[in-house]
Amino acid sequence: MLYLAEVTVKLKAGMLDPEGTTIKRALEHLGYHPNSVRSAKEYLIELEAESADKAREQIDQMCQKLIANPIIHDYIIDLREIE
Amino acid sequence: MLYLAEVTVKLKAGMLDPEGTTIKRALEHLGYHPNSVRSAKEYLIELEAESADKAREQIDQMCQKLIANPIIHDYIIDLREIE
Repeated sequence: MLYLAEVTVKLKAGMLDPEGTTIKRALEHLGYHPNSVRSAKEYLIELEAESADKAREQIDQMCQKLIANPIIHDYIIDLREIE
Repeated sequence: MLYLAEVTVKLKAGMLDPEGTTIKRALEHLGYHPNSVRSAKEYLIELEAESADKAREQIDQMCQKLIANPIIHDYIIDLREIE
C-alpha cells in the first residue's frame, strides 16, 4: 500500500522562534498587525508499507532519528493512503 | 474576532527541492526507502479581524507581499476562528 505522510515539525512551546519574530516585525513594517507569527517545517513523505500502522511506525522512527530534534521540536504525523 | 491562519508554503511542481532530496538520501542511509520527500514551510499567524473574509484577505496580502515568492511557491491558507 502507498501512503503519504504530512509531518509538521514545530518548535516546542517556550522555544525562541527568530524566524517567526522576524516575519512578524516585517509584516508590521508593511502595515499589518498580527498578534503572533510562529514558523514550522512540513515534510511530505511518500512511502510503501504493508499497513497504515507500519507506515506510521516507520515515519515515527524517521522523525526521531533524523527529521525532528526531540529536545526542541514537537512533531505531528498526518498519514493517509493514496492511490 | 480572533483568527488563526495556518499558511503552508510549498515549492511549485517542477521546482528543485534540495532539502527534500537531501533528507530522502539521509533516510536511505539509515535504511528507510521513501518514494519521495518534499519540504515545505508553515506559518501560524494569529490576527484580529472583523470577519473571516477580512482575515483571509489580509493573510492573502501578507503571503503575496512577504511570505511566499509567487514565482516559485504555491501557498494554502487554512483559517479558523479561535477563542
